[in-house]
Amino acid sequence: MAQGPHTDLPRQAWPEQAWGQDRVVTEEPLALRVEGRPLAVTMRTPGHDEDLAAGFLYTEGVIDGWDDVAALAKVRDPLDPQDNTLDVRLAAGVDLDDGRFASAQRAFYASSSCGLCGKATIESVLQGAPPLVDPRRASPELLLSLPQAMRAAQDTFERTGGLHAAALFDFDGGLEVLREDVGRHNAVDKVLGWRLRQDRAPVDDRVLLVSGRAGFELVQKAVMAQVPVLAAVGAPSSLAVELAVESGLQLVGFLRDGRFNVYGPRP
Amino acid sequence: MAQGPHTDLPRQAWPEQAWGQDRVVTEEPLALRVEGRPLAVTMRTPGHDEDLAAGFLYTEGVIDGWDDVAALAKVRDPLDPQDNTLDVRLAAGVDLDDGRFASAQRAFYASSSCGLCGKATIESVLQGAPPLVDPRRASPELLLSLPQAMRAAQDTFERTGGLHAAALFDFDGGLEVLREDVGRHNAVDKVLGWRLRQDRAPVDDRVLLVSGRAGFELVQKAVMAQVPVLAAVGAPSSLAVELAVESGLQLVGFLRDGRFNVYGPRP
Repeated sequence: MAQGPHTDLPRQAWPEQAWGQDRVVTEEPLALRVEGRPLAVTMRTPGHDEDLAAGFLYTEGVIDGWDDVAALAKVRDPLDPQDNTLDVRLAAGVDLDDGRFASAQRAFYASSSCGLCGKATIESVLQGAPPLVDPRRASPELLLSLPQAMRAAQDTFERTGGLHAAALFDFDGGLEVLREDVGRHNAVDKVLGWRLRQDRAPVDDRVLLVSGRAGFELVQKAVMAQVPVLAAVGAPSSLAVELAVESGLQLVGFLRDGRFNVYGPRP
Repeated sequence: MAQGPHTDLPRQAWPEQAWGQDRVVTEEPLALRVEGRPLAVTMRTPGHDEDLAAGFLYTEGVIDGWDDVAALAKVRDPLDPQDNTLDVRLAAGVDLDDGRFASAQRAFYASSSCGLCGKATIESVLQGAPPLVDPRRASPELLLSLPQAMRAAQDTFERTGGLHAAALFDFDGGLEVLREDVGRHNAVDKVLGWRLRQDRAPVDDRVLLVSGRAGFELVQKAVMAQVPVLAAVGAPSSLAVELAVESGLQLVGFLRDGRFNVYGPRP
């Protein structure tokens, strides 16, 4: 099993019927432990694993900032020859009680701490991340410039067609960081975790752009990191729009071909 | 919060700058319990919830067939006014031990029972679903006919742009069932669960077509239901290809514009 961002595998192309090699996006499990205790397993594209882990811990509310982390490192284990396990050690005085640990486990697989209804789900996110105060907004000109800037920075996508992308831009349209992954939520955690590991969170000074669609989970991660603007190339979901409106996030959808829709905030 | 497949929400269109209503795909949590015990929460598009629950229980290995289920019904709970909770009662003699329950919980959030490496992940799937014996194969002509047949049957997608689709076809190209959902794995569980609830599983007589990409999780679900052919409009991942090859599933990717790639089985 390969550990790079893509893997060359045999495939037969039709209508030519010729067998050849195709470059396929790599997908491998990554296990995340806290103080040796299994927290979550995600199927991800290898690379920037420490950023992914840091971003996940931050956007799911396990840690409040980089100060909470004493160490974050791959586990050397003969049973795991490909280093697919990461362990985080918390800083002295930071306590992850059972309730918070279980909540993060649940959040991981459900993007929801209640499961009863969307309204309660939104309320539980807002408990961890209060609505934004006087957040920055992106101008139409800035938004329209972003898709081309992201495409220019993506290289793997062109080769596999199987990667999602997430990127942070400053409010002058400059690209700060871009990450790609087989999972869109992983790509978002990788860019937000990259910021966190530089002790530069919250990320209230950047626009987050994602390929594809914007579901509830992505808006939740942006809100937890206090990102003021989330723009998606594709469609949003109802719960994504409702959380954006409640939290003060500027949510932009269908950003492509010189057009976009703004779903929040509302006038 | 709405409970239909789509929700009308305000949005501002650019460059027109006009506020209006936009039809957005509905996303709401669904909680699944077994004998009253919480098993999983998924963010799904409301509709066909019983099919989704049945399909999930089957493709994650909680039940072996519909005979294992005595009842599957929404839970009436004043705390859940929108009926977002389903409870399954197992048939007499069917025992869900703690190990299997925990495994299904893990499987739900990880699509992986080990998290250590892709090879072990594949082996754990094959333990639950041995490789297919003499499976049916789809002809090039059949495959090329499917995308247009699925598009013709989709109606919500045209209105929201935010739905994934999964459909079952017979080997003459006839559409049997199509379901749409904000999550592709949910759409797959809905079509496979629909079959299961008619006591017509395994689904070894159909081709499964999915919009978008084919990751490990979708191949796993197909393998668990003994589906012989999985075709995706988009790209596969490395682990999806590897599981398909190991299990004898015919995996087709990039099925669009009169072309496709076959990733397995190999000659």
